[in-house]
Amino acid sequence: MTLTIGIDVGGANTKIAALNVHRGRAVSLSTGIRYLPLWKKLSDLPSTLKILSLEVVQKWRKPDMIALTMTGELSDIFRSKDEGVDTICHTVLEVFRDIDIRVLDCSGRLLSVDDALEDPYRVAASNWYASGWFASQFFDLCILVDVGSTTTSIVPVAMGEVKAEGFTDLEKLQLYELVYTGVLRTNLAAIASRVSLKDRWINVSSEYFAQTGDVYLLLGFISIEDYTCDTPDGRGLSKEEAASRIARTVCADIKTLDMEDIISIARYFYRKQLEAIASSLKRKAKRMKECYGVEDIPCIATGLGEDFLAAEAAVKAGLKPVVRLSSLTRRDVAIMTPAVGLAFLAASYLEGRRIYWDPEL
Amino acid sequence: MTLTIGIDVGGANTKIAALNVHRGRAVSLSTGIRYLPLWKKLSDLPSTLKILSLEVVQKWRKPDMIALTMTGELSDIFRSKDEGVDTICHTVLEVFRDIDIRVLDCSGRLLSVDDALEDPYRVAASNWYASGWFASQFFDLCILVDVGSTTTSIVPVAMGEVKAEGFTDLEKLQLYELVYTGVLRTNLAAIASRVSLKDRWINVSSEYFAQTGDVYLLLGFISIEDYTCDTPDGRGLSKEEAASRIARTVCADIKTLDMEDIISIARYFYRKQLEAIASSLKRKAKRMKECYGVEDIPCIATGLGEDFLAAEAAVKAGLKPVVRLSSLTRRDVAIMTPAVGLAFLAASYLEGRRIYWDPEL
Repeated sequence: MTLTIGIDVGGANTKIAALNVHRGRAVSLSTGIRYLPLWKKLSDLPSTLKILSLEVVQKWRKPDMIALTMTGELSDIFRSKDEGVDTICHTVLEVFRDIDIRVLDCSGRLLSVDDALEDPYRVAASNWYASGWFASQFFDLCILVDVGSTTTSIVPVAMGEVKAEGFTDLEKLQLYELVYTGVLRTNLAAIASRVSLKDRWINVSSEYFAQTGDVYLLLGFISIEDYTCDTPDGRGLSKEEAASRIARTVCADIKTLDMEDIISIARYFYRKQLEAIASSLKRKAKRMKECYGVEDIPCIATGLGEDFLAAEAAVKAGLKPVVRLSSLTRRDVAIMTPAVGLAFLAASYLEGRRIYWDPEL
Repeated sequence: MTLTIGIDVGGANTKIAALNVHRGRAVSLSTGIRYLPLWKKLSDLPSTLKILSLEVVQKWRKPDMIALTMTGELSDIFRSKDEGVDTICHTVLEVFRDIDIRVLDCSGRLLSVDDALEDPYRVAASNWYASGWFASQFFDLCILVDVGSTTTSIVPVAMGEVKAEGFTDLEKLQLYELVYTGVLRTNLAAIASRVSLKDRWINVSSEYFAQTGDVYLLLGFISIEDYTCDTPDGRGLSKEEAASRIARTVCADIKTLDMEDIISIARYFYRKQLEAIASSLKRKAKRMKECYGVEDIPCIATGLGEDFLAAEAAVKAGLKPVVRLSSLTRRDVAIMTPAVGLAFLAASYLEGRRIYWDPEL
């Protein structure tokens, strides 16, 4: 039995997946996630990692490998990304002593921690690779679109391999492989500078009054349990509280704006966010069609926004067929695709053969 | 001798102006400002008001009137604006006992606190009125554009009177009289969703990584002393620190992006913010030209961004002549126009005749 653990340390959420493989077959998979905003609570990272690892490996035994990937190095708690990579790697090293720890780089290699620390920019923001690699289990040629709480990754897969063109976040932002928009934490002011309401345009406040989680809570696309981050005003998760945050984006409040109007504003932000994701997907798909001479590009949609953002945007961008990763696997796999992909990648590395998703998992 | 005090409680800054009038002539004016983010430190409002009032009336004597205006009621520390108006009015009442306190409404009337509390939405966000009224001292017909730390007010003046078309913030956002953008606190992600760099487009992160204060500090338009608010990452005000925040908006850092490129990104955000202000100004000017049948509309530029944003945008929008309020008055008057205007308005009310700016002040 081989036990591998994939850890994905994001700026706002830490995710973990533990995979047991027996005779080349995946036999069990557990996942866990915790909201941990690094810019506020970096010092909680060790305890979060401990709690999550005890959750996913209920009866603790030493894993054969822990593989690490991250995007948290971009958090402004760190002066620069190399400082972030250094801190996160050393935290994992300290929490998991005497275990073989590897760090994913943006070419899909599992580096030793020493090698990672020597070239920190190679391992910064590499979690998309694990997702793309996981997607290649299902389609030889496809685009994976993972709409998470904060960001959206778009990963091209061809000939059964990850064929990303950008490696750093900056390159990915240029090349339509990263859209910095997500289901929960995106400031509505970053989505649209004006909204339409009753055939009039209203400019939007630039404060951090409301975020996408408020829109999707109000529209009923996510549940209170999905809203795994702080609210901008520190208040609660009732629809009324979400609506009052959204009203504030046009400098109004819940007493002077009808609920119907607030819902209409929320729908406008939804449409704009959908368009932003669809637009990048379309450009990436065009590029892949040219490169590989194909008519249609299949899409695997995943992430917390799998359904109402990733899949909807893929349809809008003309990809087909559009398949939800949760329907191929499980809902938790969709929410933590990089951590799960990484656990499979690590197991494949140890076993010397590709370990596939098993429908019985 | 009549002593009037104008207080402008914003969401992020509290401003105060004390005016002495003798025989119908303004003889001295003192101003003060403190950064006080209400959403974090509402409980500091009483002490801030006390300190500021002792600063502007050095040898304390009882003012004949304290006039209050606010925009802080929009802060998300309050559930709704009426709660905000209520809290701010009661705080002022408690700090300044036994003084005639009036609250400015959006038609320019100085209401008693009781009347204000009965109709809180009339006094919410009325500070622009005081600025427009002050501008009408200099031009019978003009547009005042006040680019502050957080927002930009555009106030039409005609026939020597404030002729705003919007009264609530929502109406003003619709009618180009409020642009929620400013010199210091505007999240760069709310200004542009992508930036151009070396003939390529890069999507922008939606986090609160950097703000306009960082752009203008780096470009040399404001000094460290002007940067009177927190930085997004809690770090300092060196150009290098500002540059590192700006680099993060495209998910880069100061080690992987040249200073030249970061400056070029900063310039892009500057251009976009300028365009947003100019666009609203242009629409407002068009409307005024139609209403009043004039060819040219003069502009009074004011605020912390008087020079490089307000005046520049006015020129871009085709207004002429463009005059800086600080050149007509003083620099501190430009930075705190609503508080100063309100002190003059209160004095005019008490004296029963209009009290004008005096060049000797």
